[in-house]
Amino acid sequence: MVKTKIITPAQGAYNYPLLIKSLLLSGQRYEAEQEIVYADKLRFSYRTLNERIHRLANALTAAGIKAGDTVAMLDWDSHRYLECFFAVPMIGAVLHTVNIRMSPEQVLYTMNHAEDDLVLVHDDFLPLLEQIQGELTTVKGFIQLSDEGAPATALPVLGEYEQLLAQAAAIYDFPDFDENSVATTFYTTGTTGNPKGVYFSHRQLVLHTLNAVGTLGVYQGAPLLRSDDVYMPITPMFHVHAWGVPYVATLMGIKQVYPGRYEPNSLVRLYREEKVTFSHCVPTILQMILSCPEAAHTDFSGWKMLLGGSALTLGVAGQAAARGMLVHSGYGMSETCPLLCVTYLRTAELQQPMDAQLAVRIKTGVPVPMVDLRIIDASGNRVAHDGVAQGEVVVRAPWLTQGYLHEPEKGAELWEDGWLHTGDIASIDPRGGVEIKDRIKDVIKTGGEWISSLELESLISKHPAVASVAVVGIPDDQWGERPMALVVCQPGQAVEQKTIEVHLQQFVDSGHINKWAIPKQIKFVADIPKTSVGKINKKLIRENELAQGRAE
Amino acid sequence: MVKTKIITPAQGAYNYPLLIKSLLLSGQRYEAEQEIVYADKLRFSYRTLNERIHRLANALTAAGIKAGDTVAMLDWDSHRYLECFFAVPMIGAVLHTVNIRMSPEQVLYTMNHAEDDLVLVHDDFLPLLEQIQGELTTVKGFIQLSDEGAPATALPVLGEYEQLLAQAAAIYDFPDFDENSVATTFYTTGTTGNPKGVYFSHRQLVLHTLNAVGTLGVYQGAPLLRSDDVYMPITPMFHVHAWGVPYVATLMGIKQVYPGRYEPNSLVRLYREEKVTFSHCVPTILQMILSCPEAAHTDFSGWKMLLGGSALTLGVAGQAAARGMLVHSGYGMSETCPLLCVTYLRTAELQQPMDAQLAVRIKTGVPVPMVDLRIIDASGNRVAHDGVAQGEVVVRAPWLTQGYLHEPEKGAELWEDGWLHTGDIASIDPRGGVEIKDRIKDVIKTGGEWISSLELESLISKHPAVASVAVVGIPDDQWGERPMALVVCQPGQAVEQKTIEVHLQQFVDSGHINKWAIPKQIKFVADIPKTSVGKINKKLIRENELAQGRAE
Repeated sequence: MVKTKIITPAQGAYNYPLLIKSLLLSGQRYEAEQEIVYADKLRFSYRTLNERIHRLANALTAAGIKAGDTVAMLDWDSHRYLECFFAVPMIGAVLHTVNIRMSPEQVLYTMNHAEDDLVLVHDDFLPLLEQIQGELTTVKGFIQLSDEGAPATALPVLGEYEQLLAQAAAIYDFPDFDENSVATTFYTTGTTGNPKGVYFSHRQLVLHTLNAVGTLGVYQGAPLLRSDDVYMPITPMFHVHAWGVPYVATLMGIKQVYPGRYEPNSLVRLYREEKVTFSHCVPTILQMILSCPEAAHTDFSGWKMLLGGSALTLGVAGQAAARGMLVHSGYGMSETCPLLCVTYLRTAELQQPMDAQLAVRIKTGVPVPMVDLRIIDASGNRVAHDGVAQGEVVVRAPWLTQGYLHEPEKGAELWEDGWLHTGDIASIDPRGGVEIKDRIKDVIKTGGEWISSLELESLISKHPAVASVAVVGIPDDQWGERPMALVVCQPGQAVEQKTIEVHLQQFVDSGHINKWAIPKQIKFVADIPKTSVGKINKKLIRENELAQGRAE
Repeated sequence: MVKTKIITPAQGAYNYPLLIKSLLLSGQRYEAEQEIVYADKLRFSYRTLNERIHRLANALTAAGIKAGDTVAMLDWDSHRYLECFFAVPMIGAVLHTVNIRMSPEQVLYTMNHAEDDLVLVHDDFLPLLEQIQGELTTVKGFIQLSDEGAPATALPVLGEYEQLLAQAAAIYDFPDFDENSVATTFYTTGTTGNPKGVYFSHRQLVLHTLNAVGTLGVYQGAPLLRSDDVYMPITPMFHVHAWGVPYVATLMGIKQVYPGRYEPNSLVRLYREEKVTFSHCVPTILQMILSCPEAAHTDFSGWKMLLGGSALTLGVAGQAAARGMLVHSGYGMSETCPLLCVTYLRTAELQQPMDAQLAVRIKTGVPVPMVDLRIIDASGNRVAHDGVAQGEVVVRAPWLTQGYLHEPEKGAELWEDGWLHTGDIASIDPRGGVEIKDRIKDVIKTGGEWISSLELESLISKHPAVASVAVVGIPDDQWGERPMALVVCQPGQAVEQKTIEVHLQQFVDSGHINKWAIPKQIKFVADIPKTSVGKINKKLIRENELAQGRAE
């Protein structure tokens, strides 16, 4: 052990813990009259936000919640969610942000698994909870979240959110406690098995926020966030705290707009009416926004849009840029809080025309400060940063989940030798730019080479007769694995295996792929198996192939 | 004690300590070819900076330095200083940044008190060290810092810095250790008594840096620091790590220019030639820069200048603004690392003409995120934030010194009930703007009222015949204290007590001051006693007055 001089506190000195309450200090100091907007329903100032958080803390206490308890939240993106981001952890309790897109069975599983004590539930999810109520094993109470009226429910609710706030005292004396206290938890869904719970401490969220303020704010030429920006999230608040940006915006005193449900036309109207300048979303949502009727007569100039969640194609980025949006990419995952990488444009790159910039803007970006990111081979050795060699992304940062809730064995799989294994395959260019290639479980290992299933899908999909395609690796005695493709043809079109082979040969000739990347087996099917969230279910495809192989 | 859920790390999880080495990761990732410049003597890239820090760590190790040891630095502002800011703490040692403006006796005192093991010394300070060498009780070795050649010295030097770096290996495996390890120490000088040593941990410097990146970067309209800025410090690196900005600039990958000695004409030339866009200094230096010959034919447009250390007057700020500079104010002290407050301009204020903005820009500013700042009365009660009521500034932040080195009793005076007592008197306006009025020991307590000696000096100095003035409180049986002024007249001018009284009466009439603020005693003198660093020595003035009173 390294023997350093350890700091000596004088009598009476304050050992400042990194607690979420510290993030609430500055926003209202900078901009007390700045607005928090909830769609077209409500708007109030930062001064009021601060008071509402104090009231909420008192209301939660009156509902029996104390430090160490867990409060579940089922709501659309709202001011209430923002208030819970602060008030629940600030009293020492844990906020469980429930994924409202999961099946009722999964919602039930996560609520029992997280041991939720109190549930805050929006009217739209009352039927869901009424259905599973009898099976909730730890819940002691419910608070109703109503946008108007407060419809009757079979649930034994303690009251409606706004009424409880109005009754509560306006001052709460938030205590100090260990900065390693759990502040939030939520569940990630895989293709199979039960959802897994990740969790983040006060210290982790404070460090993530401080770092994100710097990372998003100091951008050359076009910072993603400045004090005079207007922020509207378009990734849900239940998912990795809307990428942590609500904490960042609140610290900075930035105007915040919460859109409720995600309906593209309403989002575009809110953008226009509230003069939104910064949002973040996944590429699918960006496409929906660009193609909705309301977009046709809307000027998107200067809307800074951070994309993440899945790869941003040049096509979608180009459409957005043509409409004036400034697109940036980020990389992260539920387990990483999520910030790992964000697009970084150097001065010379910013002076290029937007078309030339897009090649950089759609890449995953450069690791942000405090993030130590490596790519390693199967033996754990570091892989060269030459922009070509691929390896699994492993990371260290001050804000990574330390495991999965109540599942130490899964946590020990996530973490190995002090590095969080992302399960993503990437290359890193000599200047630090990270490019994600595939999920490690979907990469095809053939004759010592790695073939990206995503890249192969992208190339096959360029054939005009192909509507959709999935590529997986199936076992092969000689090569270890070889690629197999499922292809759905465009309506009224039919192609043969030979057609696809000839199509792919051009990419072999151009040096894009190796010849063994051409699938030996291509199956033409009516439909490709998908998961509950619409991703290609490669695990199921591989299992089907194996079963069929055995049957043959 | 509040009982929260504490985070559970999975097997293999990495508990990321906040260490200075983390700050070095991102700058070279963002801008590997960006420059570090040392006056007109040397320039190299961030890639080289990183390698030089590794070499320095090896050179220090070869010189016998290990974790827990202390390395002293006596140098002008240089790339070497920047390298020591990183390499010394990164091997687990403590960097003692020696105040080269102190007297030889004080330098000796601090070097023995800090228990320095190794000394890095610039050629210009060899005579100083040769003089005190025999009395250094803990120093085991010296390294010479030469800008050219390497003059002979009586000190037993181990070698010259550049030679030692050239000989050292280019890779050092920096270890992990407790984030509460002491990273740096330096001494503050008061008007009397020995200098006191403050100290900062890795955790404190990392948090100060992350917060400063955000604070300086997200500024509305005119951020103080962006990735494409060029930074040159004009407050010395031995003093509170040049306000911590070298760490901030390195994290961001910003071009850095270190000027060596502070000579106004050279500073202006460097500003021009290196296209500097951001600096920080004290008002006296700003005045010297504005009035030096080189300034006459230099365009200062867009030079962002952060002022601190003492109050910025409207006069100097106006001169700077008239030349195109963007002035901002900050507030902090050696004990606070130093960042506490920085000017914050709201959107509406930024749209006003610069003349109107100056009133805000010269104020001390708003507390930055994570800083909890209060004003309290003599009984410890909070004072109203009405812009009028005054109290002592007490603070909490994650980066305040936890005491004074080896002097627990002085640390216990600095800290009281968990608040660091700054000794400054301020008012806070309803919007959070802090205005420092005086040092608590210089404020004049008369008949239950507080009179700011600084404000009174400012008003008296407005009389055209007054060259300089000092105001102190002297004991008074009836009022507790009453103000007494020492006045130095302009050459060839003579005034009477009555003249000053009449002059001050106008400020009484306008409601600016109360009538008991007019000094009953005004002495016309040839000179005002100053401290070694050029501040008015009010303690000595009071002592002289008391001695004279007793003698009479």
